[in-house]
Amino acid sequence: MIDKDKLAETVAEIVSGYKLPEQPAGLYRPVEYALDCGGKRLRPMLLLAVCQALGGNIEKARSAAMGIEMYHNFTLLHDDVMDRADMRRGRPTVHVKWNDVTAILSGDAMLTLAGSLMTEVPDAVLRPVLDMFNRTAMEVYEGQQYDMDFEQRSDVTVEEYMHMIRLKTSVLLAGACYIGALIAGADEADARAFYEYGVNLGLAFQLRDDWLDTYGNPEVFGKAIGGDIVNRKKTWLLISALRESRGELDGILAEDLENDELIRQVKSVYSSLRLSDRCNHLIGEYASKAISAIAGVKIAPADRAYFINLAESLSGRDK
Amino acid sequence: MIDKDKLAETVAEIVSGYKLPEQPAGLYRPVEYALDCGGKRLRPMLLLAVCQALGGNIEKARSAAMGIEMYHNFTLLHDDVMDRADMRRGRPTVHVKWNDVTAILSGDAMLTLAGSLMTEVPDAVLRPVLDMFNRTAMEVYEGQQYDMDFEQRSDVTVEEYMHMIRLKTSVLLAGACYIGALIAGADEADARAFYEYGVNLGLAFQLRDDWLDTYGNPEVFGKAIGGDIVNRKKTWLLISALRESRGELDGILAEDLENDELIRQVKSVYSSLRLSDRCNHLIGEYASKAISAIAGVKIAPADRAYFINLAESLSGRDK
Repeated sequence: MIDKDKLAETVAEIVSGYKLPEQPAGLYRPVEYALDCGGKRLRPMLLLAVCQALGGNIEKARSAAMGIEMYHNFTLLHDDVMDRADMRRGRPTVHVKWNDVTAILSGDAMLTLAGSLMTEVPDAVLRPVLDMFNRTAMEVYEGQQYDMDFEQRSDVTVEEYMHMIRLKTSVLLAGACYIGALIAGADEADARAFYEYGVNLGLAFQLRDDWLDTYGNPEVFGKAIGGDIVNRKKTWLLISALRESRGELDGILAEDLENDELIRQVKSVYSSLRLSDRCNHLIGEYASKAISAIAGVKIAPADRAYFINLAESLSGRDK
Repeated sequence: MIDKDKLAETVAEIVSGYKLPEQPAGLYRPVEYALDCGGKRLRPMLLLAVCQALGGNIEKARSAAMGIEMYHNFTLLHDDVMDRADMRRGRPTVHVKWNDVTAILSGDAMLTLAGSLMTEVPDAVLRPVLDMFNRTAMEVYEGQQYDMDFEQRSDVTVEEYMHMIRLKTSVLLAGACYIGALIAGADEADARAFYEYGVNLGLAFQLRDDWLDTYGNPEVFGKAIGGDIVNRKKTWLLISALRESRGELDGILAEDLENDELIRQVKSVYSSLRLSDRCNHLIGEYASKAISAIAGVKIAPADRAYFINLAESLSGRDK
């Protein structure tokens, strides 16, 4: 049976127990710093939880769990360089603490290390695990590219946005679930079901992230509120408002307003369209879809409760 | 039997026949541009040549050959961003033609594509091929890191330099040979022998590259001569001269000379130490070591002649 606290402990132990060579220090110390970020460790947790729920031996899944977390932290490291983000989780990013060259090279090393960790699975699943890992990684880059492309466009649709976050965020959660299922020796149908769970969980997760950026409590969420609005980031909220406010939002965005006033006026448009409630409703729908996706999979009721609880808590999370 | 021209044709066909998705164009067009560089294609050629010489079916080695070329071109793409190099082989580099963000993300995609291509080998050799590929990739990053570290140091020894170029350049040639041998179903001893061939070929290749930067014919070599001297790059020539010229070279480098005068004075020190001849002698030694490494491997005399000829021609190359 999945013990939530024990699982978190195992993941923490896997990550902290992962050792890199001493030299060259300029290459490996930034990798350690990037891994030591105190994140949610959601992806390795999912990988191990699915493996365990499907009767697998999680000892055989430890390296893959580390690999998926390594990959995730690699994407954050390179994304921060590309976005010129100075801080992450209250600490300077790698390219600020060191420099761009270090961030690029250490990130490259993390990507290779992730692929290498992924090979440490039983022979019987080596090829399908790598196929899923490589395919997922390509989709993540495609998502990142679309996200950047959207910055230059004013006609992005909600469907395009959902497709983009599916690629950029959801497939990695889905891939983690799928790889956990493969290592457990699950059949294709169960692995696919957990993949769908991960996709929908990821969509709910990302929409909640967008919602929190506008409606979260800054002291709990851990960052300033309204950043997406100030950056005119094409989130579900902004895209929906652009399409439904009959030009009102375009007018506000075109003005040269102070940040606080801009945020106030944009939120007032959101409010007139009831977008906060509608966003949370949509998040709830994706969480339900996630739960439904695994309805046909035979797992212990207590383990099912774990996955239901995870979907519900991530959908309603405040941080 | 290895037909040199046919092999080059096959490699050209593999690279030009490699197709990427249409969308997102911002991600995939720069990858195509980076691949379409008109390089020597030395690594895929070696991979296929070794596979064929050892009796393998090179049809089974096509994807791995493409993978090793993809990986090599990925390293050039990210190195050019890190070195702020504007041109490569007479064309603007990716970060100049597009921008840094594109160069980083497209490079990441190339690294994943390389790993993915590497999985397209027979099941029996999947794990050892990936182990060699991942280990080699890590060594290449370590070499790049040491190369950058050396820029900040004045006490780099010739031994340290040789270790660095072994990592940065040689192991990828060696890995290409080794993977070609694995796909041919060779035994460990033969694969190791070809690995050693590749290592020594790579050392000869890189030393000749350094020599050409100082003594080449700019019209044949394709770039301006003396760039390494102007950049105070710690090559075998500079390191040897720093250690043997009793402070004379340090004095010249500390002066604020015009480039042409700097190059003239440094070359005069090199000349007094007979470094050009000694460098070429060393290159010849590594070429001989490469040839000796495969002396015990049973291959057709005509195929052995191919590898001997390759080592000799790369050692004496003018471009």
